This record gives sequence, C-alpha cells and structure tokens, in this order.
Amino acid sequence: MLVLGIDPGTIKMGWGVISASGSRMTRVDSGTLLLGRGETAGRLVTVWRELQELMQIHQPDVLSLERNFVSRNPQSAFRIGEARGVVMAASAYGGVELAEYSPAAVKKAVAGHGRADKQAMIVAVSRMLSLVDTPAEDEADALALAACHILRQGYDRKVAGALDAARGARRARGRAGVARR
Amino acid sequence: MLVLGIDPGTIKMGWGVISASGSRMTRVDSGTLLLGRGETAGRLVTVWRELQELMQIHQPDVLSLERNFVSRNPQSAFRIGEARGVVMAASAYGGVELAEYSPAAVKKAVAGHGRADKQAMIVAVSRMLSLVDTPAEDEADALALAACHILRQGYDRKVAGALDAARGARRARGRAGVARR
Repeated sequence: MLVLGIDPGTIKMGWGVISASGSRMTRVDSGTLLLGRGETAGRLVTVWRELQELMQIHQPDVLSLERNFVSRNPQSAFRIGEARGVVMAASAYGGVELAEYSPAAVKKAVAGHGRADKQAMIVAVSRMLSLVDTPAEDEADALALAACHILRQGYDRKVAGALDAARGARRARGRAGVARR
Repeated sequence: MLVLGIDPGTIKMGWGVISASGSRMTRVDSGTLLLGRGETAGRLVTVWRELQELMQIHQPDVLSLERNFVSRNPQSAFRIGEARGVVMAASAYGGVELAEYSPAAVKKAVAGHGRADKQAMIVAVSRMLSLVDTPAEDEADALALAACHILRQGYDRKVAGALDAARGARRARGRAGVARR
C-alpha cells in the first residue's frame, strides 16, 4: 500500500509518501511546497498542480488528510478550509481514495498519545521511518498522516479479524447448540 | 465584458453569466448545480469540473465570487471555505481573473442598500436583467455577483475618469501659471 500524506497550509504544504508492506513502513519521498505570499487563487492552484503531479508520479492508493475543524478565529477557519477543499477535490479528480484523521488521532497513532507536541512528532516520525535527516515540521506532519492511515488500517484489520473470529466462534457454538438438541 | 458569477455552497452552487456592453447588461446563461449529499471530495470535484466547463464554454473575462468571512460556527466556516477554495483554484487554473465582493457590497450594488433580503435580491436582479423567468435563490445570488462586478467596474471607471479630469485641470492650471510668469 502506498499512502500520500498531505498537511495543507496557506503558506506552505507538507507532503510525504510512505509505502507499507506487512508491518514495515518506508518513506518513499517527502518535502515541503512553498506557496509564497501571492494572491490566494494562485497559491491554491499551485496546491492543485503539485497534487496532480505527486499523484501521477507516485500513484498512491490513498491520500491521508488532516480533519481540522477547530480554529480560534473564523477567518483562519475559512483559509484552512480553502486549502483543504482544493486537496479534497484534487484527490477525487485524480481518482485517489481520501482518508481523514483528526490531529489527536494522528498523534496517538504515531507518538502514542494525543497530546504530543510538534517536536515530539518530528522525533516519533523520524524514529518510526528510520529517517537519517530530520524532516521539517510540515513534512513531518504529512508523513505522520500517511503513517497514521497505515497504522490504523492494520489496527482496523486486527479488530475486524478479532470480531470475525468472535463471530465465527459464536456461530460454531450456535451450530453445536443446534446439533445438541 | 463577460462575467461569470459564482455562489458556492456545499449542497448547491449558483452560477450566472452576464455580458456588459456600455451600460447595458444581458444575462447570457445561468443555473443551479446540485451537488447532492455524497462525500465532500466528490461534491468539490463536481464544482471543479462544472467551473472548467463553464469557463470553456463562455470564456469569461472575470469570475466574481462572494467574499464571505462571517459564520456563526467554525465548522460551517471550514465547509464554505472548502467550496470557495475550489472555485478560486479553478479560476486561476482556467486563467480567469478573480474578483471578490462582500455580501453587503453585492446587495448595495444591485438592490441599492446593503441589507436587502433574499426576496428583494431576486426581484432586483430580475428587474435589472429584464428576466422573464424568476431565478432560483442561488442562481439570483450568482447573477447579482456578476452584475456587482460590472456595476463596480463602471463606478470605478467613472471615479477614475473624474480623478483624471481633476488632475488634467490642475495640470492645465499649472501650465497656465507657468505661461503667465
């Protein structure tokens, strides 16, 4: 599985591609796209173009994006929403499945608890992916989002497996019960 | 001048194309795009595709969009931001100039005062464009946005013209003064 994590911002956008095979995760590529301080439409179309290029190069199975509905002021909520909207439309346009995780879910999956600070996240991501170079903040966030999706998939599979096993056991008991009558 | 007005929403999007020649405005085409209630990414890519098609068909000079930074709750601010972001990126992608107007500016330009209600706006837009059929609410908002840009351009030109004339008069007085010496 190949996952593209995106940390969208209004001035820069972090991105990171992780491949997963079994329980092993490898960083394929990552970086930070500087959007500059020009007019908003120009910055947003840069996000669109970069995403189309990243999806074309890496052909990810999933795009993992932060679900962020908390903001101190409405203006910044609008601004973050604008960048998120472009990322969501771009993923659908590129035919890539979208997954969304809250900041707390990402922190918990990667650093072990939901209140890890930025520095702790950089350390956790670097350790998890055995990175030699330390990623920049937005790049680390994007890699963490990609890693979160992979870890949660594994977790969800395990939970589903356990539930299936439990159901199977109940069914077996049920049949045994019928046979006993 | 051809202006495409867009009223972006999360469930439907109003659009309207107006051509202006001198002081005469004509509605070229308008409508409401239903985005359905499916997943957000799918709705946003529908907005993107519709805008690319509208820009290709009509080749507008300007896309006029509502500048909306007021919302009761942050979640709806994020949602409106998402739709706005896609419209902005789409306009830049299509090479169409973007103009933004506050709701009060649109109401003032079209209905004469900044507090016109939705019904008053529909009536004002219909009268201004001599529409036979009454447009739906979002369609009327989109036409009002397009009309607002045209009216403001005319106003800005008049103001610029008056300023130029005043400057010309000052220059003429200045020259006359020099000649007198």
